[in-house]
Amino acid sequence: MTVPFSRKLLAETLGTALLLAVVIGSGIMAERLAGGNVAIALLANTLATVGGLYVLIELLGPLSGAHFNPAVSLVMALRGALPRGQLLPYVAAQLLGAMLGAWLAHAMFEMPVLQFSAKLRGGQGQWIAEGVATFGLLLVILRAPAERVAAMVACYIGAAYWFTASTSFANPAAVFGRLFSDSFAGIAPASAPGFVLAELAGAGLALGVHRLLGAQRA
Amino acid sequence: MTVPFSRKLLAETLGTALLLAVVIGSGIMAERLAGGNVAIALLANTLATVGGLYVLIELLGPLSGAHFNPAVSLVMALRGALPRGQLLPYVAAQLLGAMLGAWLAHAMFEMPVLQFSAKLRGGQGQWIAEGVATFGLLLVILRAPAERVAAMVACYIGAAYWFTASTSFANPAAVFGRLFSDSFAGIAPASAPGFVLAELAGAGLALGVHRLLGAQRA
Amino acid sequence: MTVPFSRKLLAETLGTALLLAVVIGSGIMAERLAGGNVAIALLANTLATVGGLYVLIELLGPLSGAHFNPAVSLVMALRGALPRGQLLPYVAAQLLGAMLGAWLAHAMFEMPVLQFSAKLRGGQGQWIAEGVATFGLLLVILRAPAERVAAMVACYIGAAYWFTASTSFANPAAVFGRLFSDSFAGIAPASAPGFVLAELAGAGLALGVHRLLGAQRA
Amino acid sequence: MTVPFSRKLLAETLGTALLLAVVIGSGIMAERLAGGNVAIALLANTLATVGGLYVLIELLGPLSGAHFNPAVSLVMALRGALPRGQLLPYVAAQLLGAMLGAWLAHAMFEMPVLQFSAKLRGGQGQWIAEGVATFGLLLVILRAPAERVAAMVACYIGAAYWFTASTSFANPAAVFGRLFSDSFAGIAPASAPGFVLAELAGAGLALGVHRLLGAQRA
Repeated sequence: MTVPFSRKLLAETLGTALLLAVVIGSGIMAERLAGGNVAIALLANTLATVGGLYVLIELLGPLSGAHFNPAVSLVMALRGALPRGQLLPYVAAQLLGAMLGAWLAHAMFEMPVLQFSAKLRGGQGQWIAEGVATFGLLLVILRAPAERVAAMVACYIGAAYWFTASTSFANPAAVFGRLFSDSFAGIAPASAPGFVLAELAGAGLALGVHRLLGAQRA
Repeated sequence: MTVPFSRKLLAETLGTALLLAVVIGSGIMAERLAGGNVAIALLANTLATVGGLYVLIELLGPLSGAHFNPAVSLVMALRGALPRGQLLPYVAAQLLGAMLGAWLAHAMFEMPVLQFSAKLRGGQGQWIAEGVATFGLLLVILRAPAERVAAMVACYIGAAYWFTASTSFANPAAVFGRLFSDSFAGIAPASAPGFVLAELAGAGLALGVHRLLGAQRA
Repeated sequence: MTVPFSRKLLAETLGTALLLAVVIGSGIMAERLAGGNVAIALLANTLATVGGLYVLIELLGPLSGAHFNPAVSLVMALRGALPRGQLLPYVAAQLLGAMLGAWLAHAMFEMPVLQFSAKLRGGQGQWIAEGVATFGLLLVILRAPAERVAAMVACYIGAAYWFTASTSFANPAAVFGRLFSDSFAGIAPASAPGFVLAELAGAGLALGVHRLLGAQRA
Repeated sequence: MTVPFSRKLLAETLGTALLLAVVIGSGIMAERLAGGNVAIALLANTLATVGGLYVLIELLGPLSGAHFNPAVSLVMALRGALPRGQLLPYVAAQLLGAMLGAWLAHAMFEMPVLQFSAKLRGGQGQWIAEGVATFGLLLVILRAPAERVAAMVACYIGAAYWFTASTSFANPAAVFGRLFSDSFAGIAPASAPGFVLAELAGAGLALGVHRLLGAQRA
């Protein structure tokens, strides 16, 4: 059944909003409860993200592909899996959703809705980490069998929260949404361009390695 | 095979009782062991709930649909998936089960069986959170493929324990059962109406968004 | 393909041994590392048990049914799913395995291999809890679809470690093995009979409720 | 479809590199954040490894079999599942990948790329533990149904991080990679031979028990 384009955009906005509400909201809750132990806070943040991401991809994948991520949409457009004229609307829907998700999290936790992060993130290690994180995410998306992609993406992100030094944003829309949150999961606007560039480089690397490994699944 | 109505009610009572025993019992155990670190207690409470909820839905879904939740039964009745005359018996079975489950938890932990929570929960953020929590739960139930709904509901609730400010009751029967427990998972009777209204509003919103996204799965 | 009876017994011994090695070994490791926070220790003990139990049931289920538990074998014999003459050998294999598993854990952690627990467990709440724990386990085993029983049993036990006041032994062979370990997971010999009786009562209750719900899956 | 041998080697190198980056990177992150509570650090290290391992096996299994482990490749060669002439290239690819993975983790966390562990690990308990860990891993790989092997291996390793006293390296390539990291997950070069010998003994034992249980799945 063909899904109308307006429904695809609604799915991308809704999914990205809920994803960011999960990431930011669970970060706020975890930091409030963890009594200063950042590892415990990040464990809770990780488990909430893994569960939420799995559900959102299963739920909205049949409608829009459940990208929730401009780097994914860009790669899909380059491969012809997303009509190129739909790329910009997809990205706009994702960015809008990300911002709304941050605001929703703030409303639930009775924080000022409009805020900007002051948390500087960057440096060579962080940028390598964001590149690696996005490389891995795209490789999973490009090669996972359709019926397992939701579980695989969720598990991958759960691992990447810990093995990459940047806690794996791996998503320019996530960077955008986190700009608007001066909380555990936030990132200062000045740090955003470095993260986004590293993510796009990682996505490009994934495309190349995907071809080296054989674009068809064996 | 047709399941006799009495068995459906037994399944709803048993399932809701065990669900509340899991939620309240693991909350008591977690609080006793966590040495004052609430994040660790909520992590344990979350994992127990996710595991228990998954098993109960898989186990009893073939009998009664495994609602365990008046908001779910109401939406199913509105959609014609539950005969309207069965709605009130379903809800009564769920409320009875929830109360029995709280009492079972108290008996296991050698606490007074009959007690009432003094934990006030409420305010604008909490109510928004309960609305969001129930909205997401119903959207999952309305759209998940049958063979994955148990895992998806369990993962969703696991995420929602952390990303919603209310720790996601998302269930008027859970509110009712938690009234009877002056423990980690409890809620004071005075706070119950606000939570239930927010849950019903969230359920209604889910019905609307479900239609916007296309009631048939794509 | 028919599995020779000797292989079934080997599978029961091996599986129960590895199960007890997981339960006791992870309890020792967790207690050593947790710095006195019992909730963190039980979280680690839970996750190790869930993972190990899932794998052992998937692995050895096709050979012996993967009971690893005299209460399960007894119920299977009562239902005709295990020839009655095989019940005692099954139970003997399980008890032997449980003891060997405790010893293996001690050898790995460089503790005296032969030891006995001094940890008294009992009282009305603990016995109710063991009854509930075993009731739930047997209900899952009696009603779960074959292709999901491993995941469902593992998730159930993970929840039951937290929601039952006894941390859910739910298995007379586990009681027997834990007798031999004066560690986090141990139980004093004097406490064993109460636990085993409660477990058998819970198993009997599960048989009754299974019939009430309809012995065939709906 | 036949996969060219060069792609198999690329898959083994890439997969082992990412596996070691996950193991070592998450160990560094966890230790930095855990405030001295080693159990919390190992919990995070475990969850990241489970998620990463599951994804890598699903992703690269169709290309190379996703061994990432010389003990696995050796057993496969002994059983004729890997042409014997491919064994040494497989092992070389794995060792290279392991070293690169350690270096990648260091680069992400802005540590000196080239380093050697000073963490001595050994003694009778540790060697028994490594034998048990590898025995279990190989038994899972030899007997798991193909469509579940990724989940089963990941769950097994998650349990083995806790129930074996050695935290379950179970992989000579993992030993090799961890040599190069003076961090949470490291192992001193002097301790490596003992670990590798124990692992090979465990793998041999698994082959024997696999035959006792019946080499065909029942």
